[in-house]
Amino acid sequence: MKNNITIKDVARELGIHHVTVSRALRDTGSVKKETRELIKEKANELGYKPNRLAQDFRNKRSNVLAVVVPDIRPYFFAKFVSDFMETAQEAGYTVMIFQSSEKPGVEKEIIDSLIGYRVSGVVASVTKDTIHEGHFDALKDENIPYVFFDRAPEESRASQVVVNNYQGAYDAVTAMVESGKSRIAYISTHYQHQIFAERLAGYKQALKDHGLPDNPNLVAEGGFFMKDGFNLAKQLMASKEKPNGILAVRDEIGIGVIKYLKNAGMRVPEDVAVIGFDNDPMGIACEPELTTVQQCIPSMVSSSFDLLLGHMDNKVMGFEKKIIEPKIIFRGSA
Amino acid sequence: MKNNITIKDVARELGIHHVTVSRALRDTGSVKKETRELIKEKANELGYKPNRLAQDFRNKRSNVLAVVVPDIRPYFFAKFVSDFMETAQEAGYTVMIFQSSEKPGVEKEIIDSLIGYRVSGVVASVTKDTIHEGHFDALKDENIPYVFFDRAPEESRASQVVVNNYQGAYDAVTAMVESGKSRIAYISTHYQHQIFAERLAGYKQALKDHGLPDNPNLVAEGGFFMKDGFNLAKQLMASKEKPNGILAVRDEIGIGVIKYLKNAGMRVPEDVAVIGFDNDPMGIACEPELTTVQQCIPSMVSSSFDLLLGHMDNKVMGFEKKIIEPKIIFRGSA
Repeated sequence: MKNNITIKDVARELGIHHVTVSRALRDTGSVKKETRELIKEKANELGYKPNRLAQDFRNKRSNVLAVVVPDIRPYFFAKFVSDFMETAQEAGYTVMIFQSSEKPGVEKEIIDSLIGYRVSGVVASVTKDTIHEGHFDALKDENIPYVFFDRAPEESRASQVVVNNYQGAYDAVTAMVESGKSRIAYISTHYQHQIFAERLAGYKQALKDHGLPDNPNLVAEGGFFMKDGFNLAKQLMASKEKPNGILAVRDEIGIGVIKYLKNAGMRVPEDVAVIGFDNDPMGIACEPELTTVQQCIPSMVSSSFDLLLGHMDNKVMGFEKKIIEPKIIFRGSA
Repeated sequence: MKNNITIKDVARELGIHHVTVSRALRDTGSVKKETRELIKEKANELGYKPNRLAQDFRNKRSNVLAVVVPDIRPYFFAKFVSDFMETAQEAGYTVMIFQSSEKPGVEKEIIDSLIGYRVSGVVASVTKDTIHEGHFDALKDENIPYVFFDRAPEESRASQVVVNNYQGAYDAVTAMVESGKSRIAYISTHYQHQIFAERLAGYKQALKDHGLPDNPNLVAEGGFFMKDGFNLAKQLMASKEKPNGILAVRDEIGIGVIKYLKNAGMRVPEDVAVIGFDNDPMGIACEPELTTVQQCIPSMVSSSFDLLLGHMDNKVMGFEKKIIEPKIIFRGSA
C-alpha cells in the first residue's frame, strides 16, 4: 500500500509546483479549474491523505467538538452522548467524548487539554462537586464557545440547556397527592449539585401548596443505585411516619424502592406509590413498571447543539439559558 | 485574563533566547537547572499553555487513544468505554470516543479521520455488518496499532480481546438441562455478526451433547430490545413445542421474555427458565432477577489496554488473541 503520500509527491508526479498543488487541494488561491481537477485526480490516484492535525493547526479552527460528561454509564448521559454524536456527525463534525469521572480535578485537566487540541466547541455537564466555573474561563480566553447541559456550575453565566428540575419534582408530588397520597417521602443521592437542590425545593413547595407538612423524617439521602433505594426505603418505612408515596431522584433508586416494598409485602402503588426521574428503560423491567419524570433528551441534544453552533458562528452573543420542561410518564407505580 | 501567551513572550520577559525557553519547557537539550526553573516559573506566572496540537504534530506521536464502538448506549459498551477511559486516563492518556452507529460507512470515516488526528492507538468493536477489515489497513499503513474487542471482523488477523461466546451459550444450555429442562429455545438478534453465530453454535452443540434434538422451531431471531423479547417469547410459546427453557443473547431480550411469560400466567423458572447475556444491571430490576452470562468487562478492559500498549511499545509483535471466559451469574430466573 502507498504510504505517507505528501503534497510534494503529487507535485513531483505532475511536474507542478507544490504550492499550486496545496492551493488546489485546499481550494484556496487562484488555480485554473482544469489544473485543480488534474491535481485532485492525481492526489486521489496516489492515495494522498491530508494531515488533518497539521491542517487544523494551520486553520486554527477544527471540525472537532468535545462533549464532557461526569460518567458515561448512566442512561441519561449515555443516551445524550450517543444522540449528540449522531446529530454532530450528520452535520460533519467529529465528536470527542471525555469522562471526568465526577472528579473536578480530572474535569480541569480535560478542559485544559481541549484548549491544546483546538476544539471548536464544547458541550459539558459538570461533576457533582463543580461549584465554580473558573476552569472554563480558559476556553473563553481562547474563544472556544461552550454550552452546559443538565448540570451547569452554580451561578454560571455561560449558555446552558437545563431541565426544569423544580417543576419535575413539583409535578410528581402533585400527581401522588391527587391520587390520594398524603405522606410523601423524598429520596435523593448524596450529591450536592444544584439539580438535586432544585428537585428538593420543588418537592417542598408542592407539599406546602397542597397543605401537607414538610417533615424532615421523610427526606432520605445517600447512594445512587438500586441497593441504595432498597436500603433507604427500608429506613423510611421503619420510621413512625410511614410514607404512602415516595419520589426518588433517579429511576435506579426508585426501582430499589419498589423492590424493598414488594419484599416487605406492600403493594405498589396501592400502599405506597413510587415515582423516579430519568425515563431509564430499566424502569420498564421492574414490576409494576416505574412511573418517571422524563427529561426529554432529544430536545436537550438539539438545543445544546443549536446553541453551541450559534455561538461558534457568532449568531448567538452573550448568555442564553434554555429550560427544558419535564414530563411525567405514567406507568404502573403511581 | 492573559491570552495566547507564547514561548516568545516568555523569552522576551526574561531576556532569554526563545529556543532556550522552548528547550527548557520541553525538557530537551541542555539548559542549566537554574535557568530551566526560572523559565518554568515565569511561563507559569504568565499563564503560558503549550499548544498540544502543534506539539503532537511535531512529535508525531500523541498521547491520544481512540475507542470506536458501534453504539454507546447498551450497558456493555457504556461500561467498557467508561472503564477503559479511567484506565487510560490514569496512565496519562487522553481518550477520544467514537460511535459508528452500527454503520460500516461511518466506521470507515472514523478510521480515516483517526489517521488525520495521529492517534497513537485504537481499540475498536466493529459494527454488526463489518465483515472485512480493509478499512483498518489504513491504520496499519500509518503504524497506528489497533486492537479489536468483543466484536472483531471475521477472520481478522489483528490482535483482539474476545469473549468465548460459544462457551457462554454452551454453559447456559447445560445449566438449564441440569435443572431438568428439555425443550430449550434460543432467541437471537437480527444481527449477523459472528459473536451471535458463535453463541448459536454453542447452543446447538450443547443440545447435541445432552442428547436433545436440535429443533429449528425453537430458534427465534429478530430485535434487540425488551419488546422484541416479549414478542418472540409469545411466538415461541404459541408453537407446538412449547419450550421450558429460553436462552436470550441479550439481557434486555431476556427481560422481555420474562415479562411475557409472567403476563401469560407462567412461572419463571418453574415453568420456563430464562438466561440472558451481558450482566446488565437491568436484569436485577426484573422479577425474578435474571440469570445471565457475564462477559467480564474489567478483564476485557485491562487486556485490551495492555495489548494495545504492548503494540505501541513494540513489545507485542504480530497477532495476539486473548479469549475471556464467560461466567454464569445465577439469580432467580434459572
